[in-house]
Amino acid sequence: MSDFKAQLNTRVAEINGDLEKVFQQNLDTPEVIIEAMKYSLFAGGKRLRPILMMETCRALEGDLNIIRPLAMGIEMIHTYSLIHDDLPAMDNDDLRRGKPTNHKVYGDAMAILAGDALLNYAVETMLQGTQGLSGTALTNYISAMRCIMGASGILGMVGGQVADMISEDRVISLDEMDYIHLHKTAALLEACVQSGCIIAEAEPATQGRLISYSHRIGLAFQIVDDILDIEGNVEDLGKPIGSDEKNHKSTFVSLYGLEASKIKVAELEKEALEMLKPIGERTTFLQELASYICQRRK
Amino acid sequence: MSDFKAQLNTRVAEINGDLEKVFQQNLDTPEVIIEAMKYSLFAGGKRLRPILMMETCRALEGDLNIIRPLAMGIEMIHTYSLIHDDLPAMDNDDLRRGKPTNHKVYGDAMAILAGDALLNYAVETMLQGTQGLSGTALTNYISAMRCIMGASGILGMVGGQVADMISEDRVISLDEMDYIHLHKTAALLEACVQSGCIIAEAEPATQGRLISYSHRIGLAFQIVDDILDIEGNVEDLGKPIGSDEKNHKSTFVSLYGLEASKIKVAELEKEALEMLKPIGERTTFLQELASYICQRRK
Repeated sequence: MSDFKAQLNTRVAEINGDLEKVFQQNLDTPEVIIEAMKYSLFAGGKRLRPILMMETCRALEGDLNIIRPLAMGIEMIHTYSLIHDDLPAMDNDDLRRGKPTNHKVYGDAMAILAGDALLNYAVETMLQGTQGLSGTALTNYISAMRCIMGASGILGMVGGQVADMISEDRVISLDEMDYIHLHKTAALLEACVQSGCIIAEAEPATQGRLISYSHRIGLAFQIVDDILDIEGNVEDLGKPIGSDEKNHKSTFVSLYGLEASKIKVAELEKEALEMLKPIGERTTFLQELASYICQRRK
Repeated sequence: MSDFKAQLNTRVAEINGDLEKVFQQNLDTPEVIIEAMKYSLFAGGKRLRPILMMETCRALEGDLNIIRPLAMGIEMIHTYSLIHDDLPAMDNDDLRRGKPTNHKVYGDAMAILAGDALLNYAVETMLQGTQGLSGTALTNYISAMRCIMGASGILGMVGGQVADMISEDRVISLDEMDYIHLHKTAALLEACVQSGCIIAEAEPATQGRLISYSHRIGLAFQIVDDILDIEGNVEDLGKPIGSDEKNHKSTFVSLYGLEASKIKVAELEKEALEMLKPIGERTTFLQELASYICQRRK
Protein backbone atom coordinates (compact mmCIF):
# COMPACT_ATOMS: atom_id res chain seq x y z
CA MET A 1 0.00 0.00 0.00
CA SER A 2 1.31 3.47 -0.86
CA ASP A 3 1.98 5.95 1.93
CA PHE A 4 -0.95 8.00 0.70
CA LYS A 5 -3.39 5.06 0.82
CA ALA A 6 -2.23 4.15 4.33
CA GLN A 7 -2.63 7.75 5.46
CA LEU A 8 -6.04 7.96 3.82
CA ASN A 9 -7.18 4.81 5.64
CA THR A 10 -6.02 6.28 8.95
CA ARG A 11 -7.97 9.47 8.27
CA VAL A 12 -11.12 7.54 7.34
CA ALA A 13 -10.84 5.51 10.56
CA GLU A 14 -10.47 8.74 12.57
CA ILE A 15 -13.57 10.30 10.98
CA ASN A 16 -15.56 7.10 11.56
CA GLY A 17 -14.49 7.10 15.21
CA ASP A 18 -15.55 10.75 15.61
CA LEU A 19 -18.92 10.08 14.01
CA GLU A 20 -19.47 7.01 16.20
CA LYS A 21 -18.88 9.15 19.29
CA VAL A 22 -21.66 11.57 18.32
CA PHE A 23 -24.13 8.71 18.46
CA GLN A 24 -22.78 7.10 21.62
CA GLN A 25 -24.59 9.42 23.99
CA ASN A 26 -27.91 8.17 25.26
CA LEU A 27 -30.45 9.78 22.94
CA ASP A 28 -34.06 9.92 24.16
CA THR A 29 -35.75 9.21 20.83
CA PRO A 30 -37.28 6.13 19.12
CA GLU A 31 -34.45 3.71 18.39
CA VAL A 32 -35.50 3.14 14.78
CA ILE A 33 -34.64 6.69 13.69
CA ILE A 34 -31.11 6.39 15.14
CA GLU A 35 -30.77 3.04 13.36
CA ALA A 36 -31.93 4.52 10.05
CA MET A 37 -29.56 7.51 10.38
CA LYS A 38 -26.60 5.29 11.28
CA TYR A 39 -27.43 2.78 8.55
CA SER A 40 -26.60 5.34 5.87
CA LEU A 41 -23.97 7.29 7.80
CA PHE A 42 -21.91 4.12 8.36
CA ALA A 43 -22.51 2.49 4.98
CA GLY A 44 -18.85 2.77 3.97
CA GLY A 45 -18.67 6.30 2.62
CA LYS A 46 -15.30 7.55 1.38
CA ARG A 47 -15.40 10.47 3.89
CA LEU A 48 -13.90 12.71 1.19
CA ARG A 49 -15.59 15.87 2.43
CA PRO A 50 -14.50 15.74 6.09
CA ILE A 51 -11.02 14.61 5.02
CA LEU A 52 -10.73 17.50 2.56
CA MET A 53 -11.79 19.92 5.29
CA MET A 54 -9.52 18.53 8.01
CA GLU A 55 -6.49 18.20 5.70
CA THR A 56 -6.84 21.76 4.43
CA CYS A 57 -6.87 22.89 8.04
CA ARG A 58 -3.92 20.62 8.91
CA ALA A 59 -1.84 21.88 5.96
CA LEU A 60 -2.40 25.44 7.19
CA GLU A 61 -1.62 24.48 10.80
CA GLY A 62 -5.14 25.30 11.99
CA ASP A 63 -6.68 23.81 15.14
CA LEU A 64 -8.08 20.39 14.21
CA ASN A 65 -10.12 20.11 17.38
CA ILE A 66 -12.01 23.25 16.47
CA ILE A 67 -12.82 22.13 12.92
CA ARG A 68 -13.76 18.52 13.81
CA PRO A 69 -17.51 19.16 14.51
CA LEU A 70 -17.79 21.01 11.18
CA ALA A 71 -16.23 18.03 9.39
CA MET A 72 -18.77 15.70 11.03
CA GLY A 73 -21.57 18.07 10.14
CA ILE A 74 -20.67 18.15 6.45
CA GLU A 75 -20.56 14.34 6.26
CA MET A 76 -24.06 14.19 7.79
CA ILE A 77 -25.29 16.77 5.29
CA HIS A 78 -23.78 14.74 2.43
CA THR A 79 -25.45 11.57 3.77
CA TYR A 80 -28.89 13.19 4.15
CA SER A 81 -28.70 14.36 0.54
CA LEU A 82 -27.95 10.82 -0.66
CA ILE A 83 -30.89 9.33 1.29
CA HIS A 84 -33.35 11.86 -0.14
CA ASP A 85 -31.79 11.58 -3.62
CA ASP A 86 -32.33 7.81 -3.70
CA LEU A 87 -36.06 8.03 -2.82
CA PRO A 88 -38.59 6.66 -5.33
CA ALA A 89 -39.91 10.20 -5.87
CA MET A 90 -36.38 11.34 -6.79
CA ASP A 91 -33.80 9.06 -8.52
CA ASN A 92 -35.48 5.84 -7.32
CA ASP A 93 -32.25 3.93 -6.65
CA ASP A 94 -32.22 0.57 -4.86
CA LEU A 95 -28.50 0.22 -4.26
CA ARG A 96 -25.94 2.55 -2.71
CA ARG A 97 -22.41 1.57 -1.67
CA GLY A 98 -23.30 -2.05 -2.32
CA LYS A 99 -26.19 -2.03 0.15
CA PRO A 100 -29.94 -1.54 -0.26
CA THR A 101 -30.79 2.16 -0.08
CA ASN A 102 -32.28 3.60 3.12
CA HIS A 103 -35.90 3.54 1.97
CA LYS A 104 -35.53 -0.08 0.78
CA VAL A 105 -34.73 -1.05 4.38
CA TYR A 106 -36.78 1.41 6.47
CA GLY A 107 -39.54 2.48 4.09
CA ASP A 108 -40.06 5.83 2.36
CA ALA A 109 -41.49 7.68 5.36
CA MET A 110 -38.64 6.74 7.68
CA ALA A 111 -36.07 7.54 4.96
CA ILE A 112 -37.54 11.04 4.57
CA LEU A 113 -37.39 11.52 8.35
CA ALA A 114 -33.87 10.04 8.59
CA GLY A 115 -32.70 12.58 6.00
CA ASP A 116 -34.41 15.44 7.83
CA ALA A 117 -32.95 14.19 11.10
CA LEU A 118 -29.40 14.05 9.69
CA LEU A 119 -29.56 17.59 8.32
CA ASN A 120 -30.90 18.82 11.66
CA TYR A 121 -28.34 16.81 13.64
CA ALA A 122 -25.54 18.13 11.45
CA VAL A 123 -26.49 21.64 12.55
CA GLU A 124 -26.81 20.58 16.20
CA THR A 125 -23.36 18.96 16.05
CA MET A 126 -21.81 22.03 14.44
CA LEU A 127 -23.45 24.37 16.97
CA GLN A 128 -22.19 22.24 19.84
CA GLY A 129 -18.69 22.89 18.50
CA THR A 130 -19.04 26.56 19.47
CA GLN A 131 -18.74 25.63 23.15
CA GLY A 132 -15.61 27.04 24.70
CA LEU A 133 -14.91 29.33 21.71
CA SER A 134 -14.84 33.12 21.99
CA GLY A 135 -13.49 36.16 20.16
CA THR A 136 -12.06 35.59 16.70
CA ALA A 137 -12.12 31.80 17.07
CA LEU A 138 -15.90 31.97 17.56
CA THR A 139 -16.60 34.41 14.73
CA ASN A 140 -14.37 32.38 12.38
CA TYR A 141 -16.25 29.23 13.38
CA ILE A 142 -19.59 30.86 12.60
CA SER A 143 -18.24 32.11 9.24
CA ALA A 144 -17.21 28.57 8.36
CA MET A 145 -20.63 27.28 9.40
CA ARG A 146 -22.32 29.89 7.20
CA CYS A 147 -20.11 28.86 4.32
CA ILE A 148 -21.14 25.19 4.79
CA MET A 149 -24.86 25.90 5.13
CA GLY A 150 -24.74 28.24 2.13
CA ALA A 151 -23.11 25.51 0.05
CA SER A 152 -25.71 22.93 1.05
CA GLY A 153 -28.86 25.04 0.48
CA ILE A 154 -30.64 26.64 -2.46
CA LEU A 155 -27.53 28.59 -3.47
CA GLY A 156 -25.53 25.35 -3.47
CA MET A 157 -26.33 21.66 -3.41
CA VAL A 158 -30.15 21.87 -3.23
CA GLY A 159 -30.12 24.40 -6.08
CA GLY A 160 -28.01 21.97 -8.11
CA GLN A 161 -30.36 19.08 -7.34
CA VAL A 162 -33.34 21.10 -8.48
CA ALA A 163 -31.60 22.18 -11.69
CA ASP A 164 -30.60 18.57 -12.31
CA MET A 165 -34.15 17.37 -11.76
CA ILE A 166 -35.81 19.88 -14.04
CA SER A 167 -33.23 19.14 -16.73
CA GLU A 168 -34.33 15.51 -17.08
CA ASP A 169 -35.80 14.44 -20.41
CA ARG A 170 -34.36 17.35 -22.37
CA VAL A 171 -31.05 18.48 -23.80
CA ILE A 172 -29.74 21.33 -21.68
CA SER A 173 -27.53 24.29 -22.51
CA LEU A 174 -23.90 24.48 -21.47
CA ASP A 175 -24.79 27.20 -18.97
CA GLU A 176 -27.37 24.99 -17.34
CA MET A 177 -24.92 22.10 -17.13
CA ASP A 178 -22.26 24.34 -15.62
CA TYR A 179 -24.77 25.45 -13.02
CA ILE A 180 -25.63 21.82 -12.16
CA HIS A 181 -21.98 20.77 -11.97
CA LEU A 182 -20.90 23.71 -9.90
CA HIS A 183 -23.75 23.41 -7.44
CA LYS A 184 -24.72 19.75 -7.08
CA THR A 185 -21.34 18.45 -5.95
CA ALA A 186 -18.61 21.06 -6.32
CA ALA A 187 -20.20 23.58 -3.92
CA LEU A 188 -19.95 21.29 -0.90
CA LEU A 189 -16.38 20.24 -1.76
CA GLU A 190 -15.40 23.89 -2.12
CA ALA A 191 -17.02 24.69 1.23
CA CYS A 192 -14.78 22.03 2.83
CA VAL A 193 -11.63 23.75 1.61
CA GLN A 194 -12.97 27.19 2.38
CA SER A 195 -13.93 26.20 5.94
CA GLY A 196 -10.43 24.82 6.44
CA CYS A 197 -9.00 28.16 5.29
CA ILE A 198 -11.32 30.16 7.55
CA ILE A 199 -10.57 28.14 10.69
CA ALA A 200 -6.81 28.20 10.00
CA GLU A 201 -6.91 31.92 9.12
CA ALA A 202 -5.14 31.39 5.79
CA GLU A 203 -3.39 34.30 4.07
CA PRO A 204 -5.58 35.69 1.22
CA ALA A 205 -3.16 34.48 -1.49
CA THR A 206 -3.02 30.96 -0.07
CA GLN A 207 -6.80 30.93 0.37
CA GLY A 208 -7.24 31.99 -3.26
CA ARG A 209 -5.03 29.14 -4.47
CA LEU A 210 -6.80 26.60 -2.30
CA ILE A 211 -10.22 27.73 -3.48
CA SER A 212 -9.13 27.43 -7.12
CA TYR A 213 -7.85 23.95 -6.24
CA SER A 214 -11.21 22.99 -4.70
CA HIS A 215 -13.10 24.42 -7.64
CA ARG A 216 -11.15 22.16 -10.00
CA ILE A 217 -11.42 18.97 -7.98
CA GLY A 218 -15.11 19.68 -7.40
CA LEU A 219 -15.73 19.85 -11.13
CA ALA A 220 -13.49 16.85 -11.80
CA PHE A 221 -15.30 14.84 -9.12
CA GLN A 222 -18.63 15.35 -10.87
CA ILE A 223 -17.27 14.53 -14.35
CA VAL A 224 -15.63 11.35 -13.01
CA ASP A 225 -19.01 10.44 -11.49
CA ASP A 226 -20.58 10.81 -14.93
CA ILE A 227 -17.80 8.77 -16.58
CA LEU A 228 -18.12 5.98 -14.01
CA ASP A 229 -21.87 5.90 -14.58
CA ILE A 230 -20.96 4.62 -18.06
CA GLU A 231 -17.61 2.86 -17.64
CA GLY A 232 -17.62 1.77 -14.00
CA ASN A 233 -18.68 -1.61 -12.76
CA VAL A 234 -21.38 -2.37 -10.24
CA GLU A 235 -19.04 -4.21 -7.82
CA ASP A 236 -16.59 -1.30 -7.53
CA LEU A 237 -19.25 1.38 -7.40
CA GLY A 238 -21.73 -0.44 -5.18
CA LYS A 239 -24.56 1.03 -7.23
CA PRO A 240 -26.05 0.36 -10.67
CA ILE A 241 -24.42 2.05 -13.65
CA GLY A 242 -26.38 3.74 -16.43
CA SER A 243 -28.65 5.69 -14.07
CA ASP A 244 -28.07 9.00 -15.88
CA GLU A 245 -29.23 7.43 -19.12
CA LYS A 246 -32.17 5.78 -17.34
CA ASN A 247 -33.21 9.17 -15.94
CA HIS A 248 -32.49 10.91 -19.27
CA LYS A 249 -29.97 13.22 -17.66
CA SER A 250 -27.61 15.41 -19.65
CA THR A 251 -24.08 15.11 -18.30
CA PHE A 252 -20.65 16.36 -19.31
CA VAL A 253 -20.13 12.99 -20.96
CA SER A 254 -23.41 13.00 -22.88
CA LEU A 255 -22.61 16.48 -24.20
CA TYR A 256 -18.88 16.12 -24.94
CA GLY A 257 -18.32 12.37 -25.19
CA LEU A 258 -16.12 10.09 -23.08
CA GLU A 259 -12.78 11.03 -24.66
CA ALA A 260 -13.17 14.77 -24.19
CA SER A 261 -14.44 14.21 -20.64
CA LYS A 262 -11.35 12.23 -19.69
CA ILE A 263 -9.10 14.91 -21.19
CA LYS A 264 -11.00 17.53 -19.18
CA VAL A 265 -10.48 15.57 -15.93
CA ALA A 266 -6.75 15.24 -16.63
CA GLU A 267 -6.54 18.99 -17.27
CA LEU A 268 -8.41 19.79 -14.06
CA GLU A 269 -6.10 17.47 -12.08
CA LYS A 270 -3.02 19.16 -13.51
CA GLU A 271 -4.38 22.64 -12.77
CA ALA A 272 -5.37 21.63 -9.24
CA LEU A 273 -1.84 20.37 -8.54
CA GLU A 274 -0.31 23.52 -9.96
CA MET A 275 -2.44 25.62 -7.64
CA LEU A 276 -0.99 23.86 -4.59
CA LYS A 277 2.68 23.62 -5.49
CA PRO A 278 3.65 27.20 -4.55
CA ILE A 279 2.18 26.64 -1.08
CA GLY A 280 4.81 23.99 -0.56
CA GLU A 281 5.37 20.57 0.88
CA ARG A 282 2.67 20.74 3.51
CA THR A 283 0.13 20.34 0.71
CA THR A 284 1.51 16.93 -0.36
CA PHE A 285 -1.51 15.05 1.01
CA LEU A 286 -3.95 17.48 -0.67
CA GLN A 287 -2.09 16.98 -3.95
CA GLU A 288 -2.34 13.23 -3.69
CA LEU A 289 -6.00 13.58 -2.72
CA ALA A 290 -6.62 15.53 -5.96
CA SER A 291 -5.06 12.75 -8.03
CA TYR A 292 -7.02 10.16 -6.05
CA ILE A 293 -10.29 11.97 -6.79
CA CYS A 294 -9.48 12.38 -10.49
CA GLN A 295 -8.23 8.82 -10.98
CA ARG A 296 -10.75 6.99 -8.79
CA ARG A 297 -12.61 3.97 -10.17
CA LYS A 298 -15.38 4.12 -7.58
CA MET B 1 -62.57 43.29 16.79
CA SER B 2 -61.07 42.87 20.27
CA ASP B 3 -57.81 44.68 21.10
CA PHE B 4 -56.09 41.29 21.22
CA LYS B 5 -57.28 40.29 17.76
CA ALA B 6 -56.21 43.62 16.32
CA GLN B 7 -52.79 43.29 17.96
CA LEU B 8 -52.49 39.71 16.74
CA ASN B 9 -53.25 40.79 13.17
CA THR B 10 -50.57 43.48 13.40
CA ARG B 11 -48.02 40.93 14.62
CA VAL B 12 -48.92 38.49 11.83
CA ALA B 13 -48.50 41.25 9.25
CA GLU B 14 -45.09 42.13 10.74
CA ILE B 15 -43.88 38.51 10.57
CA ASN B 16 -45.15 38.19 7.00
CA GLY B 17 -43.28 41.37 6.06
CA ASP B 18 -40.07 40.07 7.64
CA LEU B 19 -40.37 36.73 5.85
CA GLU B 20 -41.05 38.47 2.52
CA LYS B 21 -37.84 40.45 2.93
CA VAL B 22 -35.74 37.29 3.28
CA PHE B 23 -36.85 36.24 -0.19
CA GLN B 24 -36.56 39.65 -1.81
CA GLN B 25 -32.83 39.41 -2.41
CA ASN B 26 -31.82 38.14 -5.82
CA LEU B 27 -31.23 34.43 -5.28
CA ASP B 28 -29.16 32.63 -7.93
CA THR B 29 -31.13 29.37 -7.96
CA PRO B 30 -33.84 27.82 -10.18
CA GLU B 31 -37.00 29.88 -9.72
CA VAL B 32 -39.23 26.87 -9.15
CA ILE B 33 -37.64 26.00 -5.80
CA ILE B 34 -38.18 29.53 -4.50
CA GLU B 35 -41.78 29.34 -5.71
CA ALA B 36 -42.34 26.01 -3.99
CA MET B 37 -40.81 27.27 -0.72
CA LYS B 38 -42.86 30.47 -0.79
CA TYR B 39 -46.04 28.62 -1.75
CA SER B 40 -46.12 26.89 1.63
CA LEU B 41 -44.44 29.62 3.66
CA PHE B 42 -47.07 32.15 2.58
CA ALA B 43 -50.10 29.87 2.61
CA GLY B 44 -51.77 31.76 5.46
CA GLY B 45 -50.12 30.21 8.51
CA LYS B 46 -51.12 31.56 11.94
CA ARG B 47 -47.47 32.47 12.69
CA LEU B 48 -48.02 31.29 16.28
CA ARG B 49 -44.41 30.20 16.81
CA PRO B 50 -42.65 33.41 15.77
CA ILE B 51 -45.29 35.45 17.60
CA LEU B 52 -44.82 33.40 20.78
CA MET B 53 -41.06 33.91 20.53
CA MET B 54 -41.18 37.65 19.79
CA GLU B 55 -43.83 38.36 22.42
CA THR B 56 -41.94 36.49 25.13
CA CYS B 57 -38.91 38.60 24.26
CA ARG B 58 -41.02 41.79 24.18
CA ALA B 59 -42.63 41.05 27.58
CA LEU B 60 -39.13 40.69 29.05
CA GLU B 61 -37.89 43.83 27.31
CA GLY B 62 -35.38 41.90 25.18
CA ASP B 63 -34.00 43.22 21.88
CA LEU B 64 -36.54 42.36 19.18
CA ASN B 65 -34.11 43.07 16.35
CA ILE B 66 -31.78 40.40 17.69
CA ILE B 67 -34.46 37.73 18.01
CA ARG B 68 -36.18 38.42 14.66
CA PRO B 69 -34.03 36.06 12.50
CA LEU B 70 -34.64 33.26 15.01
CA ALA B 71 -38.38 33.85 14.77
CA MET B 72 -38.22 33.64 10.99
CA GLY B 73 -36.10 30.50 11.24
CA ILE B 74 -38.60 28.70 13.43
CA GLU B 75 -41.47 29.49 11.07
CA MET B 76 -39.46 28.03 8.17
CA ILE B 77 -38.72 24.91 10.23
CA HIS B 78 -42.42 24.55 11.05
CA THR B 79 -43.30 24.95 7.37
CA TYR B 80 -40.75 22.38 6.17
CA SER B 81 -42.18 19.86 8.65
CA LEU B 82 -45.70 20.39 7.29
CA ILE B 83 -44.57 19.91 3.67
CA HIS B 84 -42.80 16.62 4.46
CA ASP B 85 -45.64 15.50 6.75
CA ASP B 86 -48.20 15.90 3.97
CA LEU B 87 -46.24 13.76 1.47
CA PRO B 88 -47.90 10.60 0.12
CA ALA B 89 -45.24 8.50 1.90
CA MET B 90 -46.19 10.18 5.19
CA ASP B 91 -49.77 11.38 6.02
CA ASN B 92 -50.75 11.67 2.34
CA ASP B 93 -52.84 14.84 2.75
CA ASP B 94 -54.15 16.79 -0.24
CA LEU B 95 -55.29 19.94 1.52
CA ARG B 96 -53.55 22.30 3.95
CA ARG B 97 -54.83 25.71 5.00
CA GLY B 98 -57.52 25.45 2.34
CA LYS B 99 -55.02 25.01 -0.50
CA PRO B 100 -53.62 21.95 -2.27
CA THR B 101 -50.58 20.64 -0.42
CA ASN B 102 -47.10 21.36 -1.76
CA HIS B 103 -46.60 18.02 -3.52
CA LYS B 104 -50.04 18.32 -5.15
CA VAL B 105 -48.82 21.49 -6.88
CA TYR B 106 -45.11 20.85 -7.43
CA GLY B 107 -44.84 17.05 -7.35
CA ASP B 108 -43.31 14.80 -4.70
CA ALA B 109 -39.67 15.35 -5.66
CA MET B 110 -39.91 19.13 -5.56
CA ALA B 111 -41.85 19.01 -2.28
CA ILE B 112 -39.09 16.94 -0.69
CA LEU B 113 -36.49 19.43 -1.94
CA ALA B 114 -38.61 22.45 -0.89
CA GLY B 115 -38.77 21.01 2.64
CA ASP B 116 -35.03 20.36 2.70
CA ALA B 117 -34.42 23.84 1.32
CA LEU B 118 -36.59 25.49 4.00
CA LEU B 119 -34.83 23.69 6.84
CA ASN B 120 -31.46 24.66 5.38
CA TYR B 121 -32.57 28.25 4.73
CA ALA B 122 -33.91 28.52 8.28
CA VAL B 123 -30.40 27.78 9.55
CA GLU B 124 -28.83 30.20 7.05
CA THR B 125 -31.25 32.94 8.13
CA MET B 126 -30.56 32.32 11.81
CA LEU B 127 -26.78 32.29 11.25
CA GLN B 128 -27.01 35.56 9.35
CA GLY B 129 -28.54 37.04 12.50
CA THR B 130 -25.19 36.63 14.30
CA GLN B 131 -23.72 39.45 12.23
CA GLY B 132 -22.82 42.42 14.39
CA LEU B 133 -23.22 40.46 17.63
CA SER B 134 -20.37 39.83 20.06
CA GLY B 135 -19.75 38.92 23.69
CA THR B 136 -22.76 37.79 25.72
CA ALA B 137 -25.23 38.84 23.02
CA LEU B 138 -23.53 36.41 20.62
CA THR B 139 -23.27 33.48 23.05
CA ASN B 140 -26.91 33.99 24.09
CA TYR B 141 -27.93 33.99 20.44
CA ILE B 142 -26.10 30.73 19.81
CA SER B 143 -27.70 29.20 22.94
CA ALA B 144 -31.12 30.13 21.61
CA MET B 145 -30.26 28.65 18.22
CA ARG B 146 -29.13 25.41 19.86
CA CYS B 147 -32.39 25.32 21.79
CA ILE B 148 -34.39 25.70 18.56
CA MET B 149 -32.41 23.10 16.61
CA GLY B 150 -32.60 20.68 19.55
CA ALA B 151 -36.38 21.08 19.64
CA SER B 152 -36.74 20.45 15.92
CA GLY B 153 -34.50 17.36 15.65
CA ILE B 154 -34.53 13.77 16.90
CA LEU B 155 -34.81 14.89 20.53
CA GLY B 156 -37.82 17.03 19.63
CA MET B 157 -40.14 17.33 16.66
CA VAL B 158 -38.59 14.67 14.40
CA GLY B 159 -38.52 12.25 17.34
CA GLY B 160 -42.22 12.96 17.91
CA GLN B 161 -43.01 12.42 14.23
CA VAL B 162 -41.24 9.08 14.24
CA ALA B 163 -43.02 7.95 17.43
CA ASP B 164 -46.33 9.07 15.92
CA MET B 165 -45.65 7.16 12.73
CA ILE B 166 -44.67 3.89 14.37
CA SER B 167 -47.74 4.13 16.64
CA GLU B 168 -50.17 3.93 13.73
CA ASP B 169 -52.43 0.89 13.56
CA ARG B 170 -52.06 -0.02 17.23
CA VAL B 171 -53.27 1.17 20.63
CA ILE B 172 -50.37 2.90 22.37
CA SER B 173 -49.49 3.28 26.04
CA LEU B 174 -49.99 6.54 27.92
CA ASP B 175 -46.20 6.94 28.10
CA GLU B 176 -45.90 6.66 24.35
CA MET B 177 -48.68 9.17 23.84
CA ASP B 178 -47.06 11.59 26.26
CA TYR B 179 -43.84 11.26 24.32
CA ILE B 180 -45.61 12.00 21.03
CA HIS B 181 -47.49 15.00 22.45
CA LEU B 182 -44.49 16.48 24.16
CA HIS B 183 -42.24 16.14 21.13
CA LYS B 184 -44.31 16.49 17.98
CA THR B 185 -45.71 19.95 18.68
CA ALA B 186 -44.96 21.08 22.22
CA ALA B 187 -41.16 20.97 21.89
CA LEU B 188 -41.06 23.66 19.20
CA LEU B 189 -43.55 25.89 21.05
CA GLU B 190 -41.48 25.55 24.21
CA ALA B 191 -38.33 26.41 22.28
CA CYS B 192 -40.02 29.66 21.18
CA VAL B 193 -40.60 30.75 24.77
CA GLN B 194 -37.20 29.53 25.91
CA SER B 195 -35.43 31.41 23.10
CA GLY B 196 -37.29 34.56 24.09
CA CYS B 197 -36.08 34.09 27.67
CA ILE B 198 -32.48 33.47 26.60
CA ILE B 199 -32.28 36.53 24.35
CA ALA B 200 -33.95 38.77 26.97
CA GLU B 201 -31.77 37.29 29.75
CA ALA B 202 -34.79 36.48 31.94
CA GLU B 203 -34.34 35.93 35.69
CA PRO B 204 -34.34 32.18 36.50
CA ALA B 205 -37.67 32.38 38.38
CA THR B 206 -39.38 34.21 35.51
CA GLN B 207 -37.86 31.82 33.00
CA GLY B 208 -39.15 28.85 35.03
CA ARG B 209 -42.69 30.28 35.02
CA LEU B 210 -42.59 31.00 31.30
CA ILE B 211 -41.32 27.52 30.49
CA SER B 212 -44.14 25.96 32.57
CA TYR B 213 -46.53 28.21 30.65
CA SER B 214 -45.13 27.05 27.30
CA HIS B 215 -45.25 23.43 28.39
CA ARG B 216 -48.98 23.76 29.10
CA ILE B 217 -49.94 25.62 25.95
CA GLY B 218 -47.83 23.18 23.94
CA LEU B 219 -49.78 20.23 25.29
CA ALA B 220 -53.10 22.07 24.97
CA PHE B 221 -52.29 22.98 21.36
CA GLN B 222 -51.86 19.32 20.44
CA ILE B 223 -55.03 18.18 22.26
CA VAL B 224 -57.05 20.94 20.57
CA ASP B 225 -55.63 19.72 17.24
CA ASP B 226 -56.92 16.24 18.04
CA ILE B 227 -60.34 17.60 19.10
CA LEU B 228 -60.66 19.68 15.94
CA ASP B 229 -59.78 16.63 13.86
CA ILE B 230 -63.14 15.28 15.09
CA GLU B 231 -65.29 18.34 15.76
CA GLY B 232 -63.83 20.96 13.44
CA ASN B 233 -65.14 21.78 10.01
CA VAL B 234 -63.24 21.68 6.77
CA GLU B 235 -63.91 25.36 5.91
CA ASP B 236 -62.45 26.68 9.18
CA LEU B 237 -59.55 24.26 9.27
CA GLY B 238 -58.66 24.34 5.60
CA LYS B 239 -57.89 20.61 5.74
CA PRO B 240 -59.96 17.43 5.92
CA ILE B 241 -61.12 16.26 9.33
CA GLY B 242 -60.93 12.64 10.49
CA SER B 243 -57.32 12.16 9.36
CA ASP B 244 -56.24 10.63 12.70
CA GLU B 245 -58.94 7.99 12.37
CA LYS B 246 -58.04 7.45 8.72
CA ASN B 247 -54.41 6.87 9.71
CA HIS B 248 -55.43 4.79 12.77
CA LYS B 249 -53.65 7.15 15.13
CA SER B 250 -54.11 7.05 18.89
CA THR B 251 -54.70 10.55 20.23
CA PHE B 252 -55.58 12.07 23.59
CA VAL B 253 -59.18 12.10 22.41
CA SER B 254 -59.23 8.48 21.28
CA LEU B 255 -57.83 7.40 24.64
CA TYR B 256 -59.82 9.66 27.00
CA GLY B 257 -62.83 10.74 24.98
CA LEU B 258 -63.93 14.21 23.85
CA GLU B 259 -65.36 15.37 27.18
CA ALA B 260 -62.25 14.59 29.24
CA SER B 261 -60.06 16.12 26.54
CA LYS B 262 -61.96 19.40 26.69
CA ILE B 263 -61.71 19.46 30.48
CA LYS B 264 -57.95 18.84 30.17
CA VAL B 265 -57.55 21.78 27.76
CA ALA B 266 -59.49 24.08 30.13
CA GLU B 267 -57.26 22.98 33.01
CA LEU B 268 -54.09 23.59 30.99
CA GLU B 269 -55.34 27.05 29.99
CA LYS B 270 -56.04 27.94 33.63
CA GLU B 271 -52.64 26.69 34.76
CA ALA B 272 -50.86 28.53 31.94
CA LEU B 273 -52.54 31.81 32.93
CA GLU B 274 -51.66 31.28 36.61
CA MET B 275 -48.02 30.82 35.66
CA LEU B 276 -47.93 34.25 34.03
CA LYS B 277 -49.90 36.36 36.50
CA PRO B 278 -47.07 36.88 39.04
CA ILE B 279 -44.86 38.23 36.27
CA GLY B 280 -47.34 41.06 35.89
CA GLU B 281 -49.11 43.16 33.32
CA ARG B 282 -46.45 42.93 30.64
CA THR B 283 -47.61 39.34 30.04
CA THR B 284 -51.17 40.37 29.09
CA PHE B 285 -50.64 39.52 25.42
CA LEU B 286 -49.10 36.13 26.28
CA GLN B 287 -52.09 35.40 28.53
CA GLU B 288 -54.53 36.23 25.77
CA LEU B 289 -52.45 34.16 23.37
CA ALA B 290 -52.81 31.14 25.67
CA SER B 291 -56.59 31.52 25.70
CA TYR B 292 -56.58 31.99 21.94
CA ILE B 293 -54.64 28.74 21.48
CA CYS B 294 -56.88 26.79 23.85
CA GLN B 295 -60.14 28.16 22.48
CA ARG B 296 -59.26 28.21 18.78
CA ARG B 297 -61.62 26.62 16.26
CA LYS B 298 -59.02 26.32 13.51
